[in-house]
Amino acid sequence: MTLPEPQPFMGITTFGRQPHTRDIDDADVAIVGIPFDSGTSHRSGTRFGPRRIREASMLLWGHNVPLAVSPFKVLKVIDYGDVDVIPVDIKKTYQNIESEVGAILKQDATVIVFGGDHSTTLPLLRAHKEKYGPLAVVHFDSHPDTWDREFGDEPYSHGTGFRRAIEEGLIDTSAYTQIGIRGPMSGANDLHEARELGARVITMDQAMSLGVGAVLREVHDKMKSKKVYVSFDIDCVDPAFAPGTGTPEVGGFSSYQALQLVRGLRGLDLIGFDLVEVSPPYDHSEITSILASNLAFEFLSLLAVSKNGQ
Amino acid sequence: MTLPEPQPFMGITTFGRQPHTRDIDDADVAIVGIPFDSGTSHRSGTRFGPRRIREASMLLWGHNVPLAVSPFKVLKVIDYGDVDVIPVDIKKTYQNIESEVGAILKQDATVIVFGGDHSTTLPLLRAHKEKYGPLAVVHFDSHPDTWDREFGDEPYSHGTGFRRAIEEGLIDTSAYTQIGIRGPMSGANDLHEARELGARVITMDQAMSLGVGAVLREVHDKMKSKKVYVSFDIDCVDPAFAPGTGTPEVGGFSSYQALQLVRGLRGLDLIGFDLVEVSPPYDHSEITSILASNLAFEFLSLLAVSKNGQ
Amino acid sequence: MTLPEPQPFMGITTFGRQPHTRDIDDADVAIVGIPFDSGTSHRSGTRFGPRRIREASMLLWGHNVPLAVSPFKVLKVIDYGDVDVIPVDIKKTYQNIESEVGAILKQDATVIVFGGDHSTTLPLLRAHKEKYGPLAVVHFDSHPDTWDREFGDEPYSHGTGFRRAIEEGLIDTSAYTQIGIRGPMSGANDLHEARELGARVITMDQAMSLGVGAVLREVHDKMKSKKVYVSFDIDCVDPAFAPGTGTPEVGGFSSYQALQLVRGLRGLDLIGFDLVEVSPPYDHSEITSILASNLAFEFLSLLAVSKNGQ
Amino acid sequence: MTLPEPQPFMGITTFGRQPHTRDIDDADVAIVGIPFDSGTSHRSGTRFGPRRIREASMLLWGHNVPLAVSPFKVLKVIDYGDVDVIPVDIKKTYQNIESEVGAILKQDATVIVFGGDHSTTLPLLRAHKEKYGPLAVVHFDSHPDTWDREFGDEPYSHGTGFRRAIEEGLIDTSAYTQIGIRGPMSGANDLHEARELGARVITMDQAMSLGVGAVLREVHDKMKSKKVYVSFDIDCVDPAFAPGTGTPEVGGFSSYQALQLVRGLRGLDLIGFDLVEVSPPYDHSEITSILASNLAFEFLSLLAVSKNGQ
Amino acid sequence: MTLPEPQPFMGITTFGRQPHTRDIDDADVAIVGIPFDSGTSHRSGTRFGPRRIREASMLLWGHNVPLAVSPFKVLKVIDYGDVDVIPVDIKKTYQNIESEVGAILKQDATVIVFGGDHSTTLPLLRAHKEKYGPLAVVHFDSHPDTWDREFGDEPYSHGTGFRRAIEEGLIDTSAYTQIGIRGPMSGANDLHEARELGARVITMDQAMSLGVGAVLREVHDKMKSKKVYVSFDIDCVDPAFAPGTGTPEVGGFSSYQALQLVRGLRGLDLIGFDLVEVSPPYDHSEITSILASNLAFEFLSLLAVSKNGQ
Amino acid sequence: MTLPEPQPFMGITTFGRQPHTRDIDDADVAIVGIPFDSGTSHRSGTRFGPRRIREASMLLWGHNVPLAVSPFKVLKVIDYGDVDVIPVDIKKTYQNIESEVGAILKQDATVIVFGGDHSTTLPLLRAHKEKYGPLAVVHFDSHPDTWDREFGDEPYSHGTGFRRAIEEGLIDTSAYTQIGIRGPMSGANDLHEARELGARVITMDQAMSLGVGAVLREVHDKMKSKKVYVSFDIDCVDPAFAPGTGTPEVGGFSSYQALQLVRGLRGLDLIGFDLVEVSPPYDHSEITSILASNLAFEFLSLLAVSKNGQ
Repeated sequence: MTLPEPQPFMGITTFGRQPHTRDIDDADVAIVGIPFDSGTSHRSGTRFGPRRIREASMLLWGHNVPLAVSPFKVLKVIDYGDVDVIPVDIKKTYQNIESEVGAILKQDATVIVFGGDHSTTLPLLRAHKEKYGPLAVVHFDSHPDTWDREFGDEPYSHGTGFRRAIEEGLIDTSAYTQIGIRGPMSGANDLHEARELGARVITMDQAMSLGVGAVLREVHDKMKSKKVYVSFDIDCVDPAFAPGTGTPEVGGFSSYQALQLVRGLRGLDLIGFDLVEVSPPYDHSEITSILASNLAFEFLSLLAVSKNGQ
Repeated sequence: MTLPEPQPFMGITTFGRQPHTRDIDDADVAIVGIPFDSGTSHRSGTRFGPRRIREASMLLWGHNVPLAVSPFKVLKVIDYGDVDVIPVDIKKTYQNIESEVGAILKQDATVIVFGGDHSTTLPLLRAHKEKYGPLAVVHFDSHPDTWDREFGDEPYSHGTGFRRAIEEGLIDTSAYTQIGIRGPMSGANDLHEARELGARVITMDQAMSLGVGAVLREVHDKMKSKKVYVSFDIDCVDPAFAPGTGTPEVGGFSSYQALQLVRGLRGLDLIGFDLVEVSPPYDHSEITSILASNLAFEFLSLLAVSKNGQ
Repeated sequence: MTLPEPQPFMGITTFGRQPHTRDIDDADVAIVGIPFDSGTSHRSGTRFGPRRIREASMLLWGHNVPLAVSPFKVLKVIDYGDVDVIPVDIKKTYQNIESEVGAILKQDATVIVFGGDHSTTLPLLRAHKEKYGPLAVVHFDSHPDTWDREFGDEPYSHGTGFRRAIEEGLIDTSAYTQIGIRGPMSGANDLHEARELGARVITMDQAMSLGVGAVLREVHDKMKSKKVYVSFDIDCVDPAFAPGTGTPEVGGFSSYQALQLVRGLRGLDLIGFDLVEVSPPYDHSEITSILASNLAFEFLSLLAVSKNGQ
Repeated sequence: MTLPEPQPFMGITTFGRQPHTRDIDDADVAIVGIPFDSGTSHRSGTRFGPRRIREASMLLWGHNVPLAVSPFKVLKVIDYGDVDVIPVDIKKTYQNIESEVGAILKQDATVIVFGGDHSTTLPLLRAHKEKYGPLAVVHFDSHPDTWDREFGDEPYSHGTGFRRAIEEGLIDTSAYTQIGIRGPMSGANDLHEARELGARVITMDQAMSLGVGAVLREVHDKMKSKKVYVSFDIDCVDPAFAPGTGTPEVGGFSSYQALQLVRGLRGLDLIGFDLVEVSPPYDHSEITSILASNLAFEFLSLLAVSKNGQ
Repeated sequence: MTLPEPQPFMGITTFGRQPHTRDIDDADVAIVGIPFDSGTSHRSGTRFGPRRIREASMLLWGHNVPLAVSPFKVLKVIDYGDVDVIPVDIKKTYQNIESEVGAILKQDATVIVFGGDHSTTLPLLRAHKEKYGPLAVVHFDSHPDTWDREFGDEPYSHGTGFRRAIEEGLIDTSAYTQIGIRGPMSGANDLHEARELGARVITMDQAMSLGVGAVLREVHDKMKSKKVYVSFDIDCVDPAFAPGTGTPEVGGFSSYQALQLVRGLRGLDLIGFDLVEVSPPYDHSEITSILASNLAFEFLSLLAVSKNGQ
Repeated sequence: MTLPEPQPFMGITTFGRQPHTRDIDDADVAIVGIPFDSGTSHRSGTRFGPRRIREASMLLWGHNVPLAVSPFKVLKVIDYGDVDVIPVDIKKTYQNIESEVGAILKQDATVIVFGGDHSTTLPLLRAHKEKYGPLAVVHFDSHPDTWDREFGDEPYSHGTGFRRAIEEGLIDTSAYTQIGIRGPMSGANDLHEARELGARVITMDQAMSLGVGAVLREVHDKMKSKKVYVSFDIDCVDPAFAPGTGTPEVGGFSSYQALQLVRGLRGLDLIGFDLVEVSPPYDHSEITSILASNLAFEFLSLLAVSKNGQ
């Protein structure tokens, strides 16, 4: 039986046309969707992020030219489908994420996760910490996500995840860098507290004056030889390049810079990746989903380069 | 101080340009938004329903011709704003709804509520039952919303509210009519159970063959002299007329029929109204929000007619 | 030289691919655009009505089956282009319309006009009355457009045109019928005054209970042997079928009914036609423009049938 | 291994969540996409029809209430994926369709096909005729599709398929009914020739005056005891209900009528179905795709009813 | 009475949730909308600019990090609502603007104005000149807006305002800088005349080669110690970042540069601000309105910094 | 007879309002549309490119400031309309393109062509080579378009055109430069083969590190004194600036860079230009079409500068 559907407009939309299965077996990488959007403070819709990023992945022809690697050939990749989420209850959703992703990690596959909103990263960090211990984290975002409470007095939301993660000891704060932070905040404390908690905050202004190369060098210096988890909130990119998101912040990275930033992580010991906050109802012409699928492809290529020993 | 902004494209968008205040005082009617969309099984976005319906209400010139009444002149209407919702926790949201709406009802104002998804009706029924006892209910919808569980094992969602309400004794099942039910269901039990629970289910096929007039006569026969709560799920209307919703079902009412159905409730003892499931990210040209604001205007006009003793 | 561009997606978009010229000569019909949208009380954008209706006309294959006529073969039709409008000054715009359209009428061509908002009909009526004397008028609309003042104290707007026309003696009020009137009004006086001014107002409710056939019979009875001008405000159609308009009113005609209503004018002495209030920025998938181009095609076919003596 | 993804917003989008495979084996029904849009005379984009209809099918909860059947339980349904199409060459595409669909039919599965434009029906008729002999055909459409040539002198296009089919002896013209025909045509010959070729043409005007019931009775009378193929061009439905199509014709069926028309084929010996001309780039809020998935669900339910001997 | 609606998706949309009132009293800043779009030469729709910018302002969390100030805490800000505009008559609209804004200025509040098209700036300059004398002006735009006539022979339009302002002595031409000018013009005279009138024209090419820092230094050198009015036409930003505008010019500033340009005015004696030409019907995902609300927030922050003596 | 329609929102949409004719006579430049979209591997819709670029050209006020020329005054420009294309047959379409464009070139007019997809460039190169001999080519694109086969075994598509052109001897490979190449490819061979075939491939990474100036210098060095054909695939621009295209690749040029790149060709012996892959159904707010019309205006201005001997 063959399924020859090579043209992008044809066929069933798994990520990169990889097989949809829950047999992890000897898979190197599992693509996992988490269609949860109840944690957002503004526009919902990220529940359709996984579906549309898979669809956009039809345009990934397979070979990464700058990295000289064809990741789908080097790695065994499966499309796990989506974690079972409970829109009305974030805590039960967290349990499902930890449990399902934890089971995948136990079989030594690396996960590439598509959100969903950024509240989904906390249980992902829990699952990865369980396996790897406290994690170095590269956190691309326009917001620090280190509020203590949101929606009144709630501890879990897309604005509190990284504070919780630090409190729970999931992050090695000696190697935790936020990149792209900007925009109006709720008060002077927002950035102050992020830094107090241990984050190295590279604001957008700093990133623009340092340049992408210097930002990456700093990340490498800080992270090398550590287990590095990468969390990419698409709203670190400017809304012109990524309109399909819930809390857009103007004045962000271009898509070219975003690609450089992910590709520039080459050489780090990368153990997990999430790409969150893609909200298709607010996208147009699928440009946000296409960007997201390309950023995931860059990360996948880094895993392949690493496996190849390139 | 005057705020003369009579042209529809001008000014601040409260419902019908009524004052935004939380002083209920001697208000007859309070417009209340419940921007909660975590209870939906498909497309989110109803959190923006209240905002867009308010905006659409700018086109309501004020006088209802068929009912010969100018409701904003007859009634003191305020725009309460929105109930505080907690997207990550439906139970806390229910508490807030019961508490806030309950307080309004205690001051003898009638509420007209804009959802949000249909999970928000349950706490509204609780608040109204607290004041009025078990309620006669006219329930416009394409789905019976009488599932026992959704999202796995969750008791609260936009598909379970009316079963819960019946179990909790909020509805007088001798006077509970569903109108417009149609579309694929999860099994033969869906309709069967709705009827077992006591609902009179008028399917779309029945409504079309009976005609709007006969449907209304049946409702009047069943409801007269009772306290009647009206819950209007916009997806009872066909997606051509109401595309902006989360779980569209083709083959529904036209906007003309929808107007007739609400207006035709004249003469009943109407004590509450919600209009739910308007999802603006999926609307176009605001036609769903405009329809919703007109349906609310019809209900408001019925209250005015009643107050006038017309 | 030939311009063989028969496929709808090809070529320059004049109405029905008729020649763009201002030489009226022996033309039977001149298509005229009036891209003026400053007269609207809500959403602007009708300035792009003529352009998009022309584009939509590419789908008119040429032969009218129910009327058994190919109007572009029977009639010499030209596309005049657009009247020069002055968005900042409605009075100067009126002068231009009267002057340009008056000049066309003097050469005995019939005009088919695409608005623009409904404020443009007043100068059209002036130009036609100059040639034909007071006019019988069939006025399709959801609003009576007989306010005395709008925008504070302005006499000219899209809501006042027909009052002005009656005051100026342009309309033979013994043969003036409004069809489709509905929706909230500014007060009880709105309809009352329309009737006081002489209009026969057939509300939407009446049209629905009478049926299209009876409405048409009444029109024929009233108009026969008179010079009949037809003004078609697209918002008489329901927003599901015509979302691209400025002040949508739910509960209107279907597209099928709209076609019947225009086609059913066969046999009247038709001397002019305008189709107004198509606002392309609010359209989707061009369905409003396509409907508008078909309605104009029906009117054009009636002129052809008349010329043929069918 | 289980793939428990029951919520509509979750998971991989095969039709009705049925398995994606090319092992026909003992399948009763194969869902087949034909993403070919080079045959259209106006708006392309139907190449994304199969993908979006699959996505819309997530909302099909599984049980057909009016037909009292759960087709996915009664029938073994697979999602074959898409036929390999060659956008630059319609003839090679036809060969692929005939060959791939022919192979499925040989294994005694019934196909339900999603186009693509209507040019794809000709090779489908060829494949079915090969198995069943000349076919009775119920053809829902706004256009007769019986032109001799299109695009200059081309024999194959979305406007010529049914003439070719008749010429090739694929259709039993004693049982060939077109339903919904309307709109401007290229000349008086269009309808005349369709009838000369043997089609019973029920125009939209006739369908509206006869009513859906009478239309269906006529179809049953003509088709009973024959092998019936159903070709459903979504543009037979009004653009208000089905905006996402390439050559919209105003004045069409409502979605309610469309559902009745397919469901009303119950009792015929149905051997094949295609649903064509859904063009997602022109859809909004997915209403056209949702309608299409429901129409296919109705047809599938008819097959299940038949298998059940209901 | 409290109105606790802190989540961006909730509540009534005044700018930054500041009170809607026309009691200026001791207000420091009044937010004023001017929903006038009759002055535009191409796409209308800016009449909805004020409404959508207010809505977008829900995302302004309140604290400006780079300027280390929380402007809504430092300043008393009110949302005045919209000036009464007359779409059919630009001159009367000008009178209303002058009169209403003049009255606000008399009470020593600073206005931040949202257009509407750029024709609205002329009466704003008149009102400010009345209070402050001839004004230094920083004018961000892609067009010089110094035509003598538009729409034939009209003196007032969105293309003529700054010529009129200079002729009327409203601008101190020794301190008048245009920034971002580019794109096709009507002739060589366009730029020549702008310079003859006294404008320092920094074209986009010059701004790109000089860099934002050098542009700002020049502005400071020229403006320091003068009363500075800032007029920001959103079309100075590239359409990728600001698609929602009437006459887009490609090749413009990024959103990051735009933020820098406004923030970089710190230290000047800023006495007024308008942000014009945001046309929501052409926006998507609200990115233009969000940018506009952020630019206004930057200006507001500058006022706060100044009041703080920072 | 005059056609005074100078406002952008008015009138018939030929390119730059130039006359629509097929009398080439003494025309310097013919604007030609090729609405063919069957050659694309992903999203169709470019068949509407010519129509929308013409419409967008209404905003070209006529004078090019950086080049100090008014091209419509210097050159006699006509709008030829569209070449007759056959969507179902790429080879016949190629014959028509060669034949129609060849006839224009024989009359010594330069063509500026709007696609359609990039498969249309091959016959354009054939026609130009027939007149000028092998051509120097500046090829702006994100893809090399030098595959050997696409859609299985097809030699002609939008991904194979430049390989075919080289094989046919149409291109002088000593002067063939590709600019902007990036994104995932089908394998390592893609770029390798492009270079083997003789292309100088300047990838996006190289262009970004070299800068636009250096890229242009290299082009000038290589091309000077040769006959230069320019083929501009709009997808070389980033999807933020040009979303309306079929196979978007993130990480591309800004609109400002794109303008510089075309304008920077000044001084070369330019003999032909095509601008392809603009797909309006995927555009928003017309920003892609507006960019395309400006790029064509830059090229036209270069022709005018050359004629002027500037």
